[in-house]
Amino acid sequence: MKKVSLLAPGPTPVPPRTLLAMAQPLIHHRSSDFLDIFGQVREGLKKLFKTENDVLVFCSSGTGAMESAVANLLSPGDKAIAIRGGKFGERWTELLEAYGCQAVNLDVEWGYAVKPADVAALLKQDPSIKAVYVQALETSTGVSHPIKELAQVTKDTGAVLVVDAVSALGAYDIPTDEWGLDVVLSGSQKALMLPPGLAFASIGPKALEMMKTSKCPKYYFSWAKELKNQGINKGTFTSPVTLFMGLLDIFELIEEMGLDNIYRETEIKSKAFKAAMAALGLSLYSKENASVGLTAVEAPEGIDGQDVVGWLKNKYAIFIAGGQAQAKGKIFRVAHMGYISEFDTLQGISAIEMALAGLGYKFDMGAGVAAAQKIFGEA
Amino acid sequence: MKKVSLLAPGPTPVPPRTLLAMAQPLIHHRSSDFLDIFGQVREGLKKLFKTENDVLVFCSSGTGAMESAVANLLSPGDKAIAIRGGKFGERWTELLEAYGCQAVNLDVEWGYAVKPADVAALLKQDPSIKAVYVQALETSTGVSHPIKELAQVTKDTGAVLVVDAVSALGAYDIPTDEWGLDVVLSGSQKALMLPPGLAFASIGPKALEMMKTSKCPKYYFSWAKELKNQGINKGTFTSPVTLFMGLLDIFELIEEMGLDNIYRETEIKSKAFKAAMAALGLSLYSKENASVGLTAVEAPEGIDGQDVVGWLKNKYAIFIAGGQAQAKGKIFRVAHMGYISEFDTLQGISAIEMALAGLGYKFDMGAGVAAAQKIFGEA
Repeated sequence: MKKVSLLAPGPTPVPPRTLLAMAQPLIHHRSSDFLDIFGQVREGLKKLFKTENDVLVFCSSGTGAMESAVANLLSPGDKAIAIRGGKFGERWTELLEAYGCQAVNLDVEWGYAVKPADVAALLKQDPSIKAVYVQALETSTGVSHPIKELAQVTKDTGAVLVVDAVSALGAYDIPTDEWGLDVVLSGSQKALMLPPGLAFASIGPKALEMMKTSKCPKYYFSWAKELKNQGINKGTFTSPVTLFMGLLDIFELIEEMGLDNIYRETEIKSKAFKAAMAALGLSLYSKENASVGLTAVEAPEGIDGQDVVGWLKNKYAIFIAGGQAQAKGKIFRVAHMGYISEFDTLQGISAIEMALAGLGYKFDMGAGVAAAQKIFGEA
Repeated sequence: MKKVSLLAPGPTPVPPRTLLAMAQPLIHHRSSDFLDIFGQVREGLKKLFKTENDVLVFCSSGTGAMESAVANLLSPGDKAIAIRGGKFGERWTELLEAYGCQAVNLDVEWGYAVKPADVAALLKQDPSIKAVYVQALETSTGVSHPIKELAQVTKDTGAVLVVDAVSALGAYDIPTDEWGLDVVLSGSQKALMLPPGLAFASIGPKALEMMKTSKCPKYYFSWAKELKNQGINKGTFTSPVTLFMGLLDIFELIEEMGLDNIYRETEIKSKAFKAAMAALGLSLYSKENASVGLTAVEAPEGIDGQDVVGWLKNKYAIFIAGGQAQAKGKIFRVAHMGYISEFDTLQGISAIEMALAGLGYKFDMGAGVAAAQKIFGEA
């Protein structure tokens, strides 16, 4: 019996009630019922982002929202800082170059977090820099960059701060307005427990001002057009109706649970999983700011991280993720965000133990599970 | 009892079995199971488009695919013909201008089809024109443009022909390779009977060649990147897994029914509906090349087309579409594509009769239904 379990950092499992909410007969995207759903989704997003800003919805993967934050803010030739401490950070450079902008690359060793002082120095050195692009949670390394502090160093400059929170939003608290985040991006398939297909962008006053002078081409991802139309609860183009119905259901779930409880549970799962890995004698790949959304673990000496991933997938139908690019083979990554319970987490730990044993690693079988159980029991 | 019926030209109803196929637990977008699904979807698309070309899949509305056909073919300053005989034709001009290209607007009176000779004359007059952009079925007027003939006039020029077949593909035969169509675009939410969220682009050799010199910025919609990755059954970014599962189910349905049978049924529904409107004394808005995919009908003298649409929506929960822009108030539009049966069509006719009677139009009640029944009975 192959019972699939998703423990990779996205797509995460979708609650069965939400799958059924999306299996309802379609409604028309220009009907008053759908306008009503659109309005409720907009309100739900504002609560989740903790903002009074407009939060736009796009039908795309998270990368579409990232692209929109280049195309709608900058003009060809503009300079912007790309904080690169992992694979997703590198995407900023690719995006900036695709639009003829100048990427000021701030390279951070994989597994470490950016130092806000380094960003401040770059901004001071070159006041023509128009934007700072960063991941809240760099999914490839499991590191959370210090977003609150980055907002402090960008606040009094001419640059806007753009935060990719695709993996972070809903996993831990990122209060847009309290921290003064100019642009926050997210997606449907991680902590929001939905299938992939929706991307979000909250746009603050400083970003709105910069948008007015942007000369990069944009159409499908045009903020100006969507601000106008979504402001009256209409997508400019055909909205993915079923995903909106799913998102409405997810917002009901979040309302029932309470955002703070969700954050607390995510943190406990993360703490239990990290304790389990320590009990097995394994080190985290994230040397600082290890995120609660997911954990990146170094494979033991002599064992290929991809073999751990492959063992879980092929023998148990459990999906975790391997390393990407320079981390390939060195690590494996396990998610704690979204619709993943403490017992899913224990199952993952148990499967990792069985895989490691099968691959010849020596340790006390069950030690990881016991360490995690202890933390879950205390919580 | 409010039993919703969708008869608008997209989103169309989704078969219940397909809704349930999409309600299955999520699978991981990098799993071998999903690569297998991706491969089957690619094969299904080739059969549907009748092409050996690669057919790319994007997570977006149809407009995203339209944008990709500007951004990946042209460079700023390039000239291209925008065939504008309705609202969607006008979108080409907006897209071309967004990318700094020069739109050569070929305006066609709404309700009429473009004359291939006019396109040929423009191309002869200015051989620097690099592309011709057209809708197969202009959804706002119900007119099918003569795609086969347009391919003949573009074939021996330096220009590629880009066909937006979002409303057309799957409603009637548009054989990409037989007609020599350089680029054909489509979407999930019309004849393909799926929720909105997937867009498609088939790319022929002449377009591939032009792509190599294109300098417009692109990233999320980059053909080159997707050709490379989708060529090995992987989306560059996170694929909308559930819609792929739905599309696989739709391809099974199409295989069971046979494409030719689907085209024949669509044609019969169209014929029956058009006969019904004639029996009620109403005229088509499409003065030539009236499409089989949907019918645009002129509202009777003194009756606002929007009132017919509103009557059906508010009293019967039946969704048809009104006119857009210059046709607003003058017409209403009813779809025949996708998962709409002959009895759905009769229900629509019946509802339109009841609305017209309620709005004061004089005619023999039941005459439309009877005319359609006769055609369904003979078929």
